[in-house]
Amino acid sequence: MIKIAPSILSADFAKLGAEVAEVEAGGADWIHVDVMDGHFVPNITLGPPIVNAIQHYTALPLDVHLMIEQPERYIADFAKAGAKVITVHAEACTHLHRVVHMIKELGVQAGVAINPGTPASVLREVLPDLDLVLVMTVNPGFGGQTFIPRTLQKIREIRQSLNEASLLDVHIEVDGGVTVETAPLVANAGADVLVAGSAVFGQSNRALAISQIRGSIRGK
Amino acid sequence: MIKIAPSILSADFAKLGAEVAEVEAGGADWIHVDVMDGHFVPNITLGPPIVNAIQHYTALPLDVHLMIEQPERYIADFAKAGAKVITVHAEACTHLHRVVHMIKELGVQAGVAINPGTPASVLREVLPDLDLVLVMTVNPGFGGQTFIPRTLQKIREIRQSLNEASLLDVHIEVDGGVTVETAPLVANAGADVLVAGSAVFGQSNRALAISQIRGSIRGK
Amino acid sequence: MIKIAPSILSADFAKLGAEVAEVEAGGADWIHVDVMDGHFVPNITLGPPIVNAIQHYTALPLDVHLMIEQPERYIADFAKAGAKVITVHAEACTHLHRVVHMIKELGVQAGVAINPGTPASVLREVLPDLDLVLVMTVNPGFGGQTFIPRTLQKIREIRQSLNEASLLDVHIEVDGGVTVETAPLVANAGADVLVAGSAVFGQSNRALAISQIRGSIRGK
Amino acid sequence: MIKIAPSILSADFAKLGAEVAEVEAGGADWIHVDVMDGHFVPNITLGPPIVNAIQHYTALPLDVHLMIEQPERYIADFAKAGAKVITVHAEACTHLHRVVHMIKELGVQAGVAINPGTPASVLREVLPDLDLVLVMTVNPGFGGQTFIPRTLQKIREIRQSLNEASLLDVHIEVDGGVTVETAPLVANAGADVLVAGSAVFGQSNRALAISQIRGSIRGK
Amino acid sequence: MIKIAPSILSADFAKLGAEVAEVEAGGADWIHVDVMDGHFVPNITLGPPIVNAIQHYTALPLDVHLMIEQPERYIADFAKAGAKVITVHAEACTHLHRVVHMIKELGVQAGVAINPGTPASVLREVLPDLDLVLVMTVNPGFGGQTFIPRTLQKIREIRQSLNEASLLDVHIEVDGGVTVETAPLVANAGADVLVAGSAVFGQSNRALAISQIRGSIRGK
Amino acid sequence: MIKIAPSILSADFAKLGAEVAEVEAGGADWIHVDVMDGHFVPNITLGPPIVNAIQHYTALPLDVHLMIEQPERYIADFAKAGAKVITVHAEACTHLHRVVHMIKELGVQAGVAINPGTPASVLREVLPDLDLVLVMTVNPGFGGQTFIPRTLQKIREIRQSLNEASLLDVHIEVDGGVTVETAPLVANAGADVLVAGSAVFGQSNRALAISQIRGSIRGK
Repeated sequence: MIKIAPSILSADFAKLGAEVAEVEAGGADWIHVDVMDGHFVPNITLGPPIVNAIQHYTALPLDVHLMIEQPERYIADFAKAGAKVITVHAEACTHLHRVVHMIKELGVQAGVAINPGTPASVLREVLPDLDLVLVMTVNPGFGGQTFIPRTLQKIREIRQSLNEASLLDVHIEVDGGVTVETAPLVANAGADVLVAGSAVFGQSNRALAISQIRGSIRGK
Repeated sequence: MIKIAPSILSADFAKLGAEVAEVEAGGADWIHVDVMDGHFVPNITLGPPIVNAIQHYTALPLDVHLMIEQPERYIADFAKAGAKVITVHAEACTHLHRVVHMIKELGVQAGVAINPGTPASVLREVLPDLDLVLVMTVNPGFGGQTFIPRTLQKIREIRQSLNEASLLDVHIEVDGGVTVETAPLVANAGADVLVAGSAVFGQSNRALAISQIRGSIRGK
Repeated sequence: MIKIAPSILSADFAKLGAEVAEVEAGGADWIHVDVMDGHFVPNITLGPPIVNAIQHYTALPLDVHLMIEQPERYIADFAKAGAKVITVHAEACTHLHRVVHMIKELGVQAGVAINPGTPASVLREVLPDLDLVLVMTVNPGFGGQTFIPRTLQKIREIRQSLNEASLLDVHIEVDGGVTVETAPLVANAGADVLVAGSAVFGQSNRALAISQIRGSIRGK
Repeated sequence: MIKIAPSILSADFAKLGAEVAEVEAGGADWIHVDVMDGHFVPNITLGPPIVNAIQHYTALPLDVHLMIEQPERYIADFAKAGAKVITVHAEACTHLHRVVHMIKELGVQAGVAINPGTPASVLREVLPDLDLVLVMTVNPGFGGQTFIPRTLQKIREIRQSLNEASLLDVHIEVDGGVTVETAPLVANAGADVLVAGSAVFGQSNRALAISQIRGSIRGK
Repeated sequence: MIKIAPSILSADFAKLGAEVAEVEAGGADWIHVDVMDGHFVPNITLGPPIVNAIQHYTALPLDVHLMIEQPERYIADFAKAGAKVITVHAEACTHLHRVVHMIKELGVQAGVAINPGTPASVLREVLPDLDLVLVMTVNPGFGGQTFIPRTLQKIREIRQSLNEASLLDVHIEVDGGVTVETAPLVANAGADVLVAGSAVFGQSNRALAISQIRGSIRGK
Repeated sequence: MIKIAPSILSADFAKLGAEVAEVEAGGADWIHVDVMDGHFVPNITLGPPIVNAIQHYTALPLDVHLMIEQPERYIADFAKAGAKVITVHAEACTHLHRVVHMIKELGVQAGVAINPGTPASVLREVLPDLDLVLVMTVNPGFGGQTFIPRTLQKIREIRQSLNEASLLDVHIEVDGGVTVETAPLVANAGADVLVAGSAVFGQSNRALAISQIRGSIRGK
């Protein structure tokens, strides 16, 4: 089953509670939360106090994507703020195995994200420990960017590695440029969690937007 | 005239638009925006996209306090997002004079903040160029902390330096632990912009809270 | 066709204009410019103002090799200074795909360099976007070092990857220890742009030196 | 022949000389010295002055494992302090090939360590230059942690690469969670130097502890 | 009363327990522990595990001097390891007031150290909160250096500030180049805790060395 | 006697040898060399190899101004390249006293520079050890900027401190915006070494430009 995870990076930050409630009512599966520190990526967005605030407006899992340096310093804060999934970037972790287990020991699902320029091979040693792999399909930092087609091959490659290792429950999430055009492509390649930013929050009818993305994937 | 600047760090982040509108209606003068990057201070709060969102909900000046490293990288973004005052930390700036002028060249008022442990002498060379000095009366990073009394002497010292240099229009802002008890103390010492976090947003009746803080200062 | 790119790191820095003019007259194809910031490598060499100065003394393409941290901060400056190729180090880029595209969007050819200890696999996701791969055949930082033979295998491996992906126009450049002895080896392995430092600028007759390197490769 | 290298991280730091002398008498082959700088790993342990002190209490080779950032800054100090093997982390070296050769030029054996989350592929270009590969079987930083079984496959993979390249003299060292239960596993996988911390120094009879670990490997 | 604090930087690191016991028997008042991380200063010495080990060999207060970056990360570890005084460098603390209070909240005495090139004015805002000021009388990093006479004036200046503020219980400690010649100078200037490295641990008779330093100060 | 030090930042970098020879012939006293690493300041200019090249074209003292982070790493290289004065920034040095003495121990004159926003009080402890204080009269990074008048007071203050301490041989150098209009102002305030960039190298007749600056100061 494909999950749709609207990214609040494209929501109206002045009324986040209402925004997340609306997409929950509109059929979203997860709420994707883009945390940027202005160091790992060239933008600053939000941190634990905001995650904490929105958890009271939705029953959906908060899927927190840490685009920050040395994420180990903030994992406990985000867990306490209500995160159900915490994803760190492989490029930001010297001790990737330790960080993944720090997340899991807090009872939170652990993900690892990789940038468009990063090969899947960096995931090799931690794959069996993960709940989720996040394949960036644009360069992280801003909403509204265009999908990078070459990342489809990377999704396929990771799904194949997971299948070969009988790791059938690991999610592959994609983030960036997801639309009704690209959703079927990434789903066919093996992704099962689709972050959608402007494609959902940028639309006047978010429920329709979600159902159109889901519909575009058809029989999946 | 004393200005009251409620800090959104203590607001409900799930409905920021409504929160700022409420304190505007309640008599606030400025909206204080606490930007933290998780590097200069041990917390991540919010960045330009959130400032941009709330500017549409209030006509009050947005008073943006950058608790971030290398703030020169983000000044243009915050100016574009609607900031009317941008304050950087002296401790974060190798080229403090340049940063102050970067802010002013964007048509924004420039402030410099100093931590509780930082002496006022670090401001000496930039004082004539400033619109505002922000004296931290708690250590930056979190809301709800207790006022540090020793900072009163620093406020007095800065007001005296400003007076001696005939810099009569420069604001002295205080941030941290402002309540009806401490407001008269900082006002007497020379502060004229009072950031109030939990003392306003933490109260059920924000208009009352603002008027009580203002009332505590009396004849000022 | 093999290109010879004399590196100004071995030129007389007191008369760079004359030096580049001389190697242009002597048959050089590109001018290789070694930019070092004293952080990515243990030497400081030169920056945009010097590139800008020498562009008026030669019609050859300026091939700018950035041995600097966070090269994204200076790409626009070097493009403006006249660079025709800008090469960044994979080891210096957290967001390698973004940096490559920053270069290309400025109308400049984009290269990625890898140190002797770095495997070719780090290039996997950006290979189709590149104009040039720079294989360091010595450790970057200084001129006059000895060629590391093991890098020949890496050149072969990259040329094979390029061929398999039908990326026939991508240059493979080598930098370090190129002489009449090593030039045929790297050319046979698949390199087509040869940086030559002391082997050209360290010789009294630079035209002869260039033609001898070219001659050493023979029928290529 | 399997070598046992007791790690002084689990010794009594108040009498290190006696501790190393005791394990030498007890049959140890090398003394493993864990250097941590509080930046590469979240602990600070010891540096050159301590290595220098203990070299006078043992004739065994001092096997110095640098869990520090920018290890190139301290290699000469550790060589001078009596190190016979110096191992740096691949994750800490931008110029891994240069650092390995810095060690060798000082007449010291050179090792490269990789964290549990780091794939063996990062070693590809330097393998022929190494005297030792150190496979971390726990995350570095503290003694007394539990062996990570998945690292066995990595040991096998590295031994196979070494065999294929006819690099028969390169040691594979393992560090973390070595006990009489795990020693035969890592030895079977291809490791020949076993760091033992609490399994030796944590025992009252260290000679017995060493002989039991050795015995657990049997006919090796 | 003048206190003598032998610095273990000059002790035999192979038998630290015996060394500290010997100077305790020889009349030392405190044990000075030099922690260096190889980043704040160009040397790596020791960390919490070693402090923890030596606390069992002496009843004297362990006076831990952190020559490390971002000392806030390790204060709890050193407190747990038995430190009775923890001193951080002003040059290493962006949030000096916060760090001082972190130490005090752990029930440990708090000190701030300043380098020879750092003016006493940086202490101005935290002076009333301190238990100790450490005036470096050599540049930190190594033992055996020569006392810098100009620091005498700084000691006097700090003692005067303390007296003017009626802060009569705050220690002034000096570290570097303390001998029977310099001890009376620093004591006269206002110091009351004298770190002695080679002047104590470098001598064969440590009790004699301590009593000679104490004697050199005479009627104090 | 006032010294004029043309800054090669405004020279033609393609023929630096001829440029420095020309200003020497034109009456310059020192050659000012602006070293920028792209980290301490937002520009990269030149390093040791270029200093080394130009020393052969002039007998004037090379006055090397290091606008780089951690300048202690490159002092020996610049001394070896022919520097007669090496100036480091106070803002770049944690151990300012040590760095000043590193320079002097190499037989080179030592200077300390301070940015426009930095108060003179940071120099207090090292003043007696200096050969030169460099007061930045623009923010460092680029040529052609406008003189900041407020720095005049700082020059006066430093000259007064030097006089009070009978440090009559210490130079005060100014860098930034020096012209025939500002030269007399800074000379009157106490400066005796005037860096002139575009005011000399930006003029067609450099000898005339130098004599006009000198003339503007008149009876000094």
